[in-house]
Amino acid sequence: MPELRQDPATKQWVIIATERAKRPEDYLRHSEKMGYPDYDESCPFCPGNEAMTPPEEFSYRREGTGPNTEGWWVRVVPNKFAALVPDGSLSRIRENGFFRSMSGVGKHEVVIESPVHNATIGTMDLRQVEEILLICRDRFNKLSQDPRFQFVTIFRNHGGLAGTSLIHPHSQIIATPIVPLHIRHRLEEAMRYYDDNGECVFCKMLAEEVEIQKRVVLETEGFIAFEAFASSVPFETWIMPKRHAATYGSISTDDAKEFAAVLSRVMKRIYVGLRDPDYNYMIHTAPFKDADENWYHWFVQIVPRLTMIAGFELGSRVFINTTPPEAAAEFLRQGI
Amino acid sequence: MPELRQDPATKQWVIIATERAKRPEDYLRHSEKMGYPDYDESCPFCPGNEAMTPPEEFSYRREGTGPNTEGWWVRVVPNKFAALVPDGSLSRIRENGFFRSMSGVGKHEVVIESPVHNATIGTMDLRQVEEILLICRDRFNKLSQDPRFQFVTIFRNHGGLAGTSLIHPHSQIIATPIVPLHIRHRLEEAMRYYDDNGECVFCKMLAEEVEIQKRVVLETEGFIAFEAFASSVPFETWIMPKRHAATYGSISTDDAKEFAAVLSRVMKRIYVGLRDPDYNYMIHTAPFKDADENWYHWFVQIVPRLTMIAGFELGSRVFINTTPPEAAAEFLRQGI
Repeated sequence: MPELRQDPATKQWVIIATERAKRPEDYLRHSEKMGYPDYDESCPFCPGNEAMTPPEEFSYRREGTGPNTEGWWVRVVPNKFAALVPDGSLSRIRENGFFRSMSGVGKHEVVIESPVHNATIGTMDLRQVEEILLICRDRFNKLSQDPRFQFVTIFRNHGGLAGTSLIHPHSQIIATPIVPLHIRHRLEEAMRYYDDNGECVFCKMLAEEVEIQKRVVLETEGFIAFEAFASSVPFETWIMPKRHAATYGSISTDDAKEFAAVLSRVMKRIYVGLRDPDYNYMIHTAPFKDADENWYHWFVQIVPRLTMIAGFELGSRVFINTTPPEAAAEFLRQGI
Repeated sequence: MPELRQDPATKQWVIIATERAKRPEDYLRHSEKMGYPDYDESCPFCPGNEAMTPPEEFSYRREGTGPNTEGWWVRVVPNKFAALVPDGSLSRIRENGFFRSMSGVGKHEVVIESPVHNATIGTMDLRQVEEILLICRDRFNKLSQDPRFQFVTIFRNHGGLAGTSLIHPHSQIIATPIVPLHIRHRLEEAMRYYDDNGECVFCKMLAEEVEIQKRVVLETEGFIAFEAFASSVPFETWIMPKRHAATYGSISTDDAKEFAAVLSRVMKRIYVGLRDPDYNYMIHTAPFKDADENWYHWFVQIVPRLTMIAGFELGSRVFINTTPPEAAAEFLRQGI
């Protein structure tokens, strides 16, 4: 019998569709990505092509090498085709007094995660993953200084079905002058839970998952990786810090290293077990102004793109998930 | 300069990304679908294979032919791999007192839209489209009689990127025992607008679009097809009845025929102009219990799947749209 499950933090329903249930093996496809070369002379993110991107904002690089030359191992540049642009002031416009818009002010950055064209989080050295996550934290904090911005989304697109056309490993960071409505709804629900129960709904979720165990993929002293109770897609995996913190910007360097170790192991397991699937991951975090709140909690949501988003999902935002999270957790735990 | 636009009915933001703007021609791809045969002996929806589906709920068929035999031209069957199942009672379950779920009771039907394997809305006779839309209305009303159900989603998936593996033309109908949270948020915003302004926000939107004209694709006496001001993807098109009505179930036969004519012309234009793109369309409607409300309004949302949903969209639900709706409308108006 299928099951409707509700995300305890957002109240969002998903359908766990047992009538069309699939085993992990059913999702495996040939991954072209595994055959990519480690260098591509036409790639704007490959070493030697630094002039093909806008001037860098930051890099980790060998001593004695200058900005926008070779010698870097992680490099942050503005997105050449930015969704939002940093120059300009915020102005609200109305068309016919009814349709509201705003100048597209924001910041859109790319974190080039490695000089190696075909590297990916699931195959990189731990050290490299640590530095990527530390840079994301630092950029988050830098962007939070700009009074025009309210919110930052950090995300990674891997593979064509996940919306990237560039093979070279990269994450993206977008600072927006608004808090997205979806995030506001999440915040409101979390606040309501706090009002009712006097504790953070994510801290509670975490404690429940540790107790129940069957959805846990990996647990360390400070972090837990688990399949969300109301996973919207097969193998949707969350990584959450045990220490309460509303925004990603507040993570300590030590915690970021532990987070990197967990992310790295989970992504390696997904890379091997699901044969390098396309995926997105997003760091969910509170808006800057709510950095110190007791009721929100940052975490990473990993969304493998093994199934397509169809009309039912677009219309109702209720996802039909063909793999129970408990079965996904059992599979991912093997050999992690 | 990019622009942030807000949907007046939902308050949802989108980014109209002028820095990465594309022309309609940039989206054109080769459509494999155009080369499909008109009959496939292994297709469960092709005539002669009626036994491959669960027994039909309804059909339009030649006089003298019996159910589940050839002779039909539109046929409604239960989905063989149903997301929700009709047998059983609604029960709420709690895991550890914290995680809520519900038995997956609902109804999942397939409307097989034509006996012709490679037909699609954009190429069908008008008469056929009329009958499909009338059947959808009748199924909607039938499902609304079941006290266990609160809401119906009617949707169409066309092509692999839109989430369908079956080529044969079909729509789907899912009745759920819950109102999806996304729909509840839409209802709440619409109600708030009504409280503030004493009119339906969609009636207002419609009047504004008719006055402004630049996003209108097609207008008839009773319907308007337009590119939404805050379109989330290139060529997102809405078709809305001018006469206020909260649910699709209330449409008259004459109005359904006029709706069919508009839908048919728009889908033909998309089929030819964008070369048979993958797409979804969804009929947005109020829950059964709100059928007579003044503040909600049914409409169809057509979402061509020309771009991929990436991490930013998944994380923030703010879409980055690379074609301004005004340019999309200009393109679709040509030769419609």
